[in-house]
Amino acid sequence: MLENLLLNSKISNELYNYAKQLPIIDYHNHLSLSDIREDKRFDDVYDLWIKPDPYKHRAMRMCGVPEEYISGCASPEEKFIKWCETIPKLMGNPLYHWSLMELSMVFGIQDLPSGENAKSIYERCNAYLKEQVVSVSTLLDQFNVEFACPCVSLTDDVDMFEDSERFAPSLRGDDIVNLSVEFIQKMERVLHMNIRDLQTFQSAVTQRLLLLKKCGCVFVDHALDNGFTYYEDDRKNEKRFARLLKGKLDGAEKEKLSSYLLRFLCGEYARLQLVVQLHIGAQRYTSSKLREQVGPAGGFAGIGNSVDVMSLTSFLDAVDRSEYGLPKIVLFTLNPADNALISVLSGSYSKDGVDGLITQGPAWWWCDHKLGIEDMLENAAAFSALSNFIGMTTDSRSFLSFVRHDYFRRILCNWIGEKIEKGEWVSPDEHVKDLLERLCYGNAKKQFS
Amino acid sequence: MLENLLLNSKISNELYNYAKQLPIIDYHNHLSLSDIREDKRFDDVYDLWIKPDPYKHRAMRMCGVPEEYISGCASPEEKFIKWCETIPKLMGNPLYHWSLMELSMVFGIQDLPSGENAKSIYERCNAYLKEQVVSVSTLLDQFNVEFACPCVSLTDDVDMFEDSERFAPSLRGDDIVNLSVEFIQKMERVLHMNIRDLQTFQSAVTQRLLLLKKCGCVFVDHALDNGFTYYEDDRKNEKRFARLLKGKLDGAEKEKLSSYLLRFLCGEYARLQLVVQLHIGAQRYTSSKLREQVGPAGGFAGIGNSVDVMSLTSFLDAVDRSEYGLPKIVLFTLNPADNALISVLSGSYSKDGVDGLITQGPAWWWCDHKLGIEDMLENAAAFSALSNFIGMTTDSRSFLSFVRHDYFRRILCNWIGEKIEKGEWVSPDEHVKDLLERLCYGNAKKQFS
Amino acid sequence: MLENLLLNSKISNELYNYAKQLPIIDYHNHLSLSDIREDKRFDDVYDLWIKPDPYKHRAMRMCGVPEEYISGCASPEEKFIKWCETIPKLMGNPLYHWSLMELSMVFGIQDLPSGENAKSIYERCNAYLKEQVVSVSTLLDQFNVEFACPCVSLTDDVDMFEDSERFAPSLRGDDIVNLSVEFIQKMERVLHMNIRDLQTFQSAVTQRLLLLKKCGCVFVDHALDNGFTYYEDDRKNEKRFARLLKGKLDGAEKEKLSSYLLRFLCGEYARLQLVVQLHIGAQRYTSSKLREQVGPAGGFAGIGNSVDVMSLTSFLDAVDRSEYGLPKIVLFTLNPADNALISVLSGSYSKDGVDGLITQGPAWWWCDHKLGIEDMLENAAAFSALSNFIGMTTDSRSFLSFVRHDYFRRILCNWIGEKIEKGEWVSPDEHVKDLLERLCYGNAKKQFS
Repeated sequence: MLENLLLNSKISNELYNYAKQLPIIDYHNHLSLSDIREDKRFDDVYDLWIKPDPYKHRAMRMCGVPEEYISGCASPEEKFIKWCETIPKLMGNPLYHWSLMELSMVFGIQDLPSGENAKSIYERCNAYLKEQVVSVSTLLDQFNVEFACPCVSLTDDVDMFEDSERFAPSLRGDDIVNLSVEFIQKMERVLHMNIRDLQTFQSAVTQRLLLLKKCGCVFVDHALDNGFTYYEDDRKNEKRFARLLKGKLDGAEKEKLSSYLLRFLCGEYARLQLVVQLHIGAQRYTSSKLREQVGPAGGFAGIGNSVDVMSLTSFLDAVDRSEYGLPKIVLFTLNPADNALISVLSGSYSKDGVDGLITQGPAWWWCDHKLGIEDMLENAAAFSALSNFIGMTTDSRSFLSFVRHDYFRRILCNWIGEKIEKGEWVSPDEHVKDLLERLCYGNAKKQFS
Repeated sequence: MLENLLLNSKISNELYNYAKQLPIIDYHNHLSLSDIREDKRFDDVYDLWIKPDPYKHRAMRMCGVPEEYISGCASPEEKFIKWCETIPKLMGNPLYHWSLMELSMVFGIQDLPSGENAKSIYERCNAYLKEQVVSVSTLLDQFNVEFACPCVSLTDDVDMFEDSERFAPSLRGDDIVNLSVEFIQKMERVLHMNIRDLQTFQSAVTQRLLLLKKCGCVFVDHALDNGFTYYEDDRKNEKRFARLLKGKLDGAEKEKLSSYLLRFLCGEYARLQLVVQLHIGAQRYTSSKLREQVGPAGGFAGIGNSVDVMSLTSFLDAVDRSEYGLPKIVLFTLNPADNALISVLSGSYSKDGVDGLITQGPAWWWCDHKLGIEDMLENAAAFSALSNFIGMTTDSRSFLSFVRHDYFRRILCNWIGEKIEKGEWVSPDEHVKDLLERLCYGNAKKQFS
Repeated sequence: MLENLLLNSKISNELYNYAKQLPIIDYHNHLSLSDIREDKRFDDVYDLWIKPDPYKHRAMRMCGVPEEYISGCASPEEKFIKWCETIPKLMGNPLYHWSLMELSMVFGIQDLPSGENAKSIYERCNAYLKEQVVSVSTLLDQFNVEFACPCVSLTDDVDMFEDSERFAPSLRGDDIVNLSVEFIQKMERVLHMNIRDLQTFQSAVTQRLLLLKKCGCVFVDHALDNGFTYYEDDRKNEKRFARLLKGKLDGAEKEKLSSYLLRFLCGEYARLQLVVQLHIGAQRYTSSKLREQVGPAGGFAGIGNSVDVMSLTSFLDAVDRSEYGLPKIVLFTLNPADNALISVLSGSYSKDGVDGLITQGPAWWWCDHKLGIEDMLENAAAFSALSNFIGMTTDSRSFLSFVRHDYFRRILCNWIGEKIEKGEWVSPDEHVKDLLERLCYGNAKKQFS
């Protein structure tokens, strides 16, 4: 059932046969550091398949499943059954494909889950997990993951990455920019120092960035949430930092300090040759009821309005004019209506000798489905140079989400195959294969060398 | 010519054969109450086909037809001919298909109208209307309309619905929210009471809502026009109401009262289990010349900018936190660039046991065409759970517009057929049929039981 | 390789065979007036193919080519080679097709350029340019250009157009609206008069408009850049003009004067029956580094946010209410997310006897590719009447860009062919051909008679 999934032509199939054997570089995800550290073994399918995946929780909520069976105290088996009952209602949603692929690739189960076969699938999966050792490392082997980059905070302990051949930290920088007294205090504890002014804070940040760099960190990310506004430097940020320490900074004044810090950080990233992912356009506040019940990462965030282009371009220009110029920047947008606007920025800034200085990132979060991926590819190709696209990453909390690389590759190969079949692309085979290799593996790999 | 219209594969045709025999539930339209009450018989094709359809007027204006032949004093035959002359210029516009389908399904005329055959078609249609009795009820029979919900205002006389087996009122709530002294006075007259304060006004509203509910009302609608801003409660609305009564409330102060009333109403709708349609994003003010000539519903409204997501999510959150939580909400957007942003809200709020608490509504108004419908389906499927989609409604003033259900079903079946042919959907036939039944009939029907 | 490029069905091919022989009317471009005046002969392929085309420069920057090889002092041959090396990376970008078509149609070279064959192509092209006379007029003959309209400023010398049978000026009106003291002084010099007040300035403008009209001018254009806000008349513009003369007008006050002038101009355009192109939504300020290096037209502009619909509709309404009503208006949008919003305005204003009073223009600038053109066609057809669409124009600085008309015609014919093949369009052949003729040639031609 799944062999030719999403592949609709002979050329697409041929391209996929080439693409599928390429290793995976997952340059940004939210995998659990402790699971990785202890090479966690999974012995319950609920624990592996459903619990760490807020996308599935969200879909169940849409279908009226009571919270008890999602984040509540129902048993793993009951929760498993509710999820299986939900799947047939999700035709056209990526979870429909991902679920099929997850069960098939890990457990060899080819059935479409539903209320009828839920109990049987549950038992087969758990039997499998008893017989076979399924752990973080066996899963990464099975999915052919060469390298993965779980997120860390600047204050996290990153010792585990120092000698790792398979993992590097990916810095999530939001708490540096949306600065709080608590974060400064954490920095003081971690670095055994006093931070009483902005300059000291910046030195402390740089010190930690150097450590991260030493531990293999290449990718960082910042969220520019719905409503993002950029403020030019007005040389008043030392004072703002002092007010923040006294708990007296908020509103636009706080945002001005954030703009300053983001600009400073991007300067440092450029100097240290780190790649910056900007995650643009989430509306993180929707249901306060769900936020209380299941936490901020519970899967209920929405899509924000179009990013303010003047803010975004002024910010990029300010960094461009600074000492080291722009770092390599990958722009993710959660609002697909911004795909053209985002892709076109690839041509708006440049650095001699750097290909893809600014590129659009893969279809992100709620957009990670056939519709979103194809739309992203179309826009990146038409408004910029697709060959600079850095390729897929899961951005996921689940060790099964590596199937999304396969999902992406199928959609990519099918999309390219159609272009060739229609005579739109007339390039020789080796050019096409070269492109495919770059988008599935090479462009991400290159950042680590 | 029309049998396989818009159906491009064997599977699509098979699906359509199943879908076409399902009855129609038209849960929101603007059909004339007096026409329904008197079971109006139609004896002139202009009167039936062109006069009540502002979409057609609009298309003629685009093509330079003088207003005399649209809303002016030219004869019905002259106006009919101008409309037929316009049709060949509308390839790709839904009016092209609708017109074909209207003539075919009601009059058995298969010709594509044009300047050449206009007079002949006019005569054939009018001959038919003389020979056959064509009235509101025969048309509803012919289109297999099981249930239809014309709009009423809160102050309208709704006696006619009390024993109706085919009609229920659909409440258009805009005059409650965009409150005016005139509306309060009308409420006073209708309810034989004095309304001197906000609390009394709210009681009066509730009293009428209960009456509507008794008359079978299940659906209500509110417009969130271009520029919609939501204001949190600041407990100052009693005073605002008093100022309004004195004719002294406008601008943002008036909008704050509107936010309060909308929140109050949605609370009542939740308590009474009414389904709320939010019609988002119309730019109703464009040409003041046309507004004077042909009235506010004359067909010249535009599409507004993207809805303010922070306003929309804060509003939904406020209702979610109130006593009865959210009512079932159907979000319509006039700006198709908002499809993803709107669809994704399905996963942002939840209520135990309620499937589809928030869903995207059908492609609305100017978006009601193949492009708009397919885009809406793609987004609803990818960003939410399509199986919760409530299905088509005409939102029309014309008794011939029920062809749009057939139009929708053809597009839906063709779209699903393509997914299956391409191997994207791998569900068993009965799941697909179940989905189809829900989207064409079942999900709307369920609201009435 | 290129004969059937972008044509995927028998019907599409047949339509294209009809379309390709129609002459070209290029109603808006940026061709060099001096090149036209002297009928410049081209003797170096770099000079003809790459130098005047900022799109190509932009693509090279995306791919990391150092500025030295783009706008810098590398040799023409070195620059040529860098460009050829870039082309294989542009699959899906219109430059990939345009480059193929430019080499093929002018030089008979069918190869896909790349690093390998760059030197050979360079030599073959230059040999050709030595053997053959390739000049402005031979190129226009070769491309079957019947009429072309290069941009002029209101103060430019337009004598060369007076007896021209192939060229008319197209007025770029931005310096009239974004008024500066320098522009007023230039007007004073050109017209040998003193301009001390707004009324005199307006008379001077009218005087020049009459001269342009006499020289065959039919099209004018104005940019409504990202952030465009319209202000209603407040009768204070005489004072603002006086303040401007003193160098004391900026910010919103300056924008109010701009609104006044744009309104005045559109009134004059209506009176003189000129066609107004509004170029909406460019974000012209991105990289200040590139702006310094390569000038404002260097190819690094971005796409702005959605146009403010209230501003746009209020502005159109104000002109509609003025003495001569609206001139014919063509709305270009750089943000494809606005396609529906822009297309739908076709139905929001009207003028007896004028078809297509307001229409969407062709996919513009960064949107001029298969994705953008098809999206524009879909939206124009579904939200308005496609038959009123004025058709393609290059908006280019390069004499080779006329291939874009062929590119457009292929995409258009393929798009229509698909509609017919799928049974969506059921019109007789002569209607389809009539439509095709209008969109490729007739609707633009009509404006000149």
